[in-house]
Amino acid sequence: MRLRNVKNKEEILSNSKYFIDNPFKYKGKWQEVFKNNNPIYIEIGMGKGKFIIENALKYPNINFIGIEKYDSVVAKCLMKIPNDIPNLVIVRVDALEIDKVFDKEIERIYLNFSDPWPKVRHSLRRLSSKVFLNKYDYIFKDRKLIYMRTDNRDLYIYSLMSFSEHGYVLKEISFDLHKDQSNLITTEYEDKFASKGMPIYSVVAEVDN
Amino acid sequence: MRLRNVKNKEEILSNSKYFIDNPFKYKGKWQEVFKNNNPIYIEIGMGKGKFIIENALKYPNINFIGIEKYDSVVAKCLMKIPNDIPNLVIVRVDALEIDKVFDKEIERIYLNFSDPWPKVRHSLRRLSSKVFLNKYDYIFKDRKLIYMRTDNRDLYIYSLMSFSEHGYVLKEISFDLHKDQSNLITTEYEDKFASKGMPIYSVVAEVDN
Repeated sequence: MRLRNVKNKEEILSNSKYFIDNPFKYKGKWQEVFKNNNPIYIEIGMGKGKFIIENALKYPNINFIGIEKYDSVVAKCLMKIPNDIPNLVIVRVDALEIDKVFDKEIERIYLNFSDPWPKVRHSLRRLSSKVFLNKYDYIFKDRKLIYMRTDNRDLYIYSLMSFSEHGYVLKEISFDLHKDQSNLITTEYEDKFASKGMPIYSVVAEVDN
Repeated sequence: MRLRNVKNKEEILSNSKYFIDNPFKYKGKWQEVFKNNNPIYIEIGMGKGKFIIENALKYPNINFIGIEKYDSVVAKCLMKIPNDIPNLVIVRVDALEIDKVFDKEIERIYLNFSDPWPKVRHSLRRLSSKVFLNKYDYIFKDRKLIYMRTDNRDLYIYSLMSFSEHGYVLKEISFDLHKDQSNLITTEYEDKFASKGMPIYSVVAEVDN
């Protein structure tokens, strides 16, 4: 997600208790950050953060880590986090470095409305490509579990095949998530999109070792 | 596929050189029927037969077996087969008995516009349910390969998940086959449906042992 520049973004980041400045140093030690052994779920590309913030509020016994590449997006998200959520942190990391940040400690990955990279020559930049699936293999604790949502049909089809090729079993496939499920926690982008009556595609991909 | 009754259907069946009256006796010996070692592809529920007849004409080095449950449908198909197609036979078998007809000798299964059995309590009657996938395991020669097409979204979604759960890798997923591919060999039903601009869903499911 790209956003216009946020003024004082460095200040916002350094002053936020939710922002982890150097996430690489916690590799394999994220339990120290949360001071408990609860499961850790991450959202790669958390955007403005609505989805992960609401999840953290609703599921206090899960630890959530929001991941974004861009300072300005991270700053936007940090400004939105209410008072006190002990089970949420935000990191600024390029997804390509995700295997340098975690070591067999993640129980669930959310991929919400990721960049579709529509050109075939950019397909390996998609967060569901084998490039990233190989990295996710290193960060999952045991069972691999990816929750994906997108409005982009081509990205969805690509992802179904990519997950399947990588050994994932595809579950809970929906071609119209908002029709099939109620009481969903959504992203900002998703709300705009779904309010126009456009379908949201979703899948849960799992490897149960 | 259901059709109105065909008069003289018994006569049509017994007079056709394409009809195999007692397919059970060829279990494990279908090469004897075709008198060669070419790969055998089957279509379960071949309906009026357009798809399998055109395939047999186009691919003379593949042996094709059309399978249908109903006498009247079989008769309709037999009446349509032109002159001389040495690589095609038709059998009347309930798909539930498919593992009594073949023994590790099939290289490809086509499931075209199968009955969607929309009620959940009938889901195990779907040709992509685990009931049938278990039977297909016994008839595939080595690699398992299912080519599926349908206009029914719910059946399609169910099938993707069922194939995946059974260990199949999903390939060549299309949500609009006629837009994505040209020069397709089609079924009668498919032509009617696609001519209205409705999308055809398709997938190739594979287990490469």
